[in-house]
Amino acid sequence: MSEPLRIGIAGLGTVGAGVVALIQSNADLLAQRCGRGIEIVCVSAKDRGRDRGVDVSGYQWVDDARAMAGMDGLDAVVELIGGEVGVAHELVQSSLKAGRHVVTANKALLAHHGAVLAHLAEAHGADLAYEAAVAGGIPAIKALREGLAANRVSAVYGILNGTSNYILSDMRETGRDFDVVLKEAQDKGYAEADPAFDVDGVDAGHKICLLAAIGFGVKPDFGAVRMRGIRRVSATDIDFAGELGYRIKLLGVAQEIGGQLDVSVEPCLVYKKSRMAHVEGVYNAVRVQGDFVDTPMLTGRGAGAGPTASAVVADILDIARGLKLPSFGIPAADLKAADFVDPGHIERRFYVRLNVLDQPGVIADVSAILRDHEISIESMLQRGRDPGKAVAVMMVTHEVRQADLEHAAEAIGALGTCLEAPFVMRIEGGV
Amino acid sequence: MSEPLRIGIAGLGTVGAGVVALIQSNADLLAQRCGRGIEIVCVSAKDRGRDRGVDVSGYQWVDDARAMAGMDGLDAVVELIGGEVGVAHELVQSSLKAGRHVVTANKALLAHHGAVLAHLAEAHGADLAYEAAVAGGIPAIKALREGLAANRVSAVYGILNGTSNYILSDMRETGRDFDVVLKEAQDKGYAEADPAFDVDGVDAGHKICLLAAIGFGVKPDFGAVRMRGIRRVSATDIDFAGELGYRIKLLGVAQEIGGQLDVSVEPCLVYKKSRMAHVEGVYNAVRVQGDFVDTPMLTGRGAGAGPTASAVVADILDIARGLKLPSFGIPAADLKAADFVDPGHIERRFYVRLNVLDQPGVIADVSAILRDHEISIESMLQRGRDPGKAVAVMMVTHEVRQADLEHAAEAIGALGTCLEAPFVMRIEGGV
Repeated sequence: MSEPLRIGIAGLGTVGAGVVALIQSNADLLAQRCGRGIEIVCVSAKDRGRDRGVDVSGYQWVDDARAMAGMDGLDAVVELIGGEVGVAHELVQSSLKAGRHVVTANKALLAHHGAVLAHLAEAHGADLAYEAAVAGGIPAIKALREGLAANRVSAVYGILNGTSNYILSDMRETGRDFDVVLKEAQDKGYAEADPAFDVDGVDAGHKICLLAAIGFGVKPDFGAVRMRGIRRVSATDIDFAGELGYRIKLLGVAQEIGGQLDVSVEPCLVYKKSRMAHVEGVYNAVRVQGDFVDTPMLTGRGAGAGPTASAVVADILDIARGLKLPSFGIPAADLKAADFVDPGHIERRFYVRLNVLDQPGVIADVSAILRDHEISIESMLQRGRDPGKAVAVMMVTHEVRQADLEHAAEAIGALGTCLEAPFVMRIEGGV
Repeated sequence: MSEPLRIGIAGLGTVGAGVVALIQSNADLLAQRCGRGIEIVCVSAKDRGRDRGVDVSGYQWVDDARAMAGMDGLDAVVELIGGEVGVAHELVQSSLKAGRHVVTANKALLAHHGAVLAHLAEAHGADLAYEAAVAGGIPAIKALREGLAANRVSAVYGILNGTSNYILSDMRETGRDFDVVLKEAQDKGYAEADPAFDVDGVDAGHKICLLAAIGFGVKPDFGAVRMRGIRRVSATDIDFAGELGYRIKLLGVAQEIGGQLDVSVEPCLVYKKSRMAHVEGVYNAVRVQGDFVDTPMLTGRGAGAGPTASAVVADILDIARGLKLPSFGIPAADLKAADFVDPGHIERRFYVRLNVLDQPGVIADVSAILRDHEISIESMLQRGRDPGKAVAVMMVTHEVRQADLEHAAEAIGALGTCLEAPFVMRIEGGV
């Protein structure tokens, strides 16, 4: 058996402790599978004294994780600190410059600095691996970069944030509204005290940004990801969608439209009968549309100590096995700056929910605005009757230009009888 | 850019033609992704004159595919002839002996000779890759062998035969019986004239045999796979199962039971709400239960020219990229002979359907037999009433020893009032 792979683990939060636990628990198996031992040499975290449920006393303690970049005899650094700036960024950068392999679960770091870091890795003969950054334990990066690499990809999309999917699933099952379900999820520890990262689509945005880079051979460009979260999705929307044969999912979507790229995170209506619609609760899903393979889909737990550790250690095994690939599937120098489509020009079907006063003439006003913006309606449905009070009206459009719809929605929102801005969601029929 | 990878393609049926089409169509993309061209040097098939929808006139024609093993300047042989004996076996064997990489979609060959061939590959420094042998375009082999390699696997299972799944899905949707649906599937070209390979579980048996080898580090042992197909599944069974909250799926299952291994293919009742139950039609699914990752699942098209070609070319890309792994994830010398569990000792819940005469005393007789064999029943249901005529009676057992149930079923079948052997299916509650 060859020399062990000597690693340092920076960050001992939930995931870091999970990685230590996995390597301790499955040491023999890992050694058999990669032909050499995986040896934890050193660890680093903020608070040395904290009980993490794993014994780290046998490893060298490093106060400042950044020191790992220059430590003798270390083959790889496992960065589990998080954040796109500060210690994590410095550690990854200097480790790669020192020719040290890096395994990270840091989606923000890669979404912001992926292209530069990939260059750095290649220039110094190091691997930069990040399976755990997308969809937790699901081997989505490997599937897209290797397993499906024979395909020209036209779309890659998925349910990439477990907290949001949990909230939407619970709302559908219980009929409760967003705020109530979020509050309960926070109390149970399923959602963060500050849930913005999850429910506003930022987390999913980081992930779809990375999947887009691999699928389309472009530089990760987080600034170009259009993101809308699920805060405005109401119990009424879920009901309406259900009647129309859809479920509402927060989808990250990277797709080619007329030779250009569109990358977004937003709540979408997906067919109730699709495989994607059945991915419920904290589960994640990644689906790829390739020219030969059709649309394989991977599902599984997208977060948590065990699944994320599984992905981190899979990357460690790849390094130990000598399986070497460019970070985004092609040489960093070949990654193009993506040519993004003007979202206003995209033609789709949309779901629109209005909150209007239930009085004569309102629908006529709305209809006139739609006509003036060339928005053709497939169906319109009013929930309940309550003269003089607020009532929900739902519309489904035929294929219309997004810009036309946005202008129409703005004009409708300006009506005195319209009580709040119309809520628009896209319909992802093909998903 | 490095030298191209020079390959020979043996077999130009649906899959072979698909591989040629893919390599021609995506040549630039493939070259970018693996840093070198993929060059088809030669092809071979039975009938040179046949129109295959792809132009092979630019490649050297080889009359006897076995000649590829000794051809100069060939890096890899792609074996798409099929069958566990004859030309395919000889070609793979002699190619590996010549140190030539082999890519194959031949599940039968590997299920029968996998351990010997893996040894041969390692001894001669060649790769033996077979992603296309299991679940078509779904990168299941790569997921299990690499993406989930950090886990101790307790089970790997799935819907591994598209034809059977199509038939079961259609039976459920239309309420028609097996024979009718099979006939229609044959007329439409979805099922073979001789459907035995698909509907009797042999095809799925080959596949689960390979997944078991990787998941548990054992030699593929096709002789130890217990196989039962779907011919006896009736519309009544599907109805009964639905009422109980289940769907019927032909599952290949490899699982660890009390430190031993069980590998089987048989129709099973799976929870209607599970992700597995929603894999319908020609789709395949592979699910892995690992100690850290929980249960990720991969779904997609399990057959057809495009998806299978996608998997074959993924293997070719791995070779071109220099990604080298033992065929079954660990060195061939480390593969153990599996220690198989005695299936009679397995305790499970079962579904049992009887076809009995509707007359007084029958249920009493059946109940007495069950009591004598210590089979405890959770529920019993009779479909319709028709005194003196045949009637279907369904039972669900509590957890019972399989051997006890089999003996009881035999005794029940011997009753004069029982018109055919009881039909038993296992209930896979956890799936």
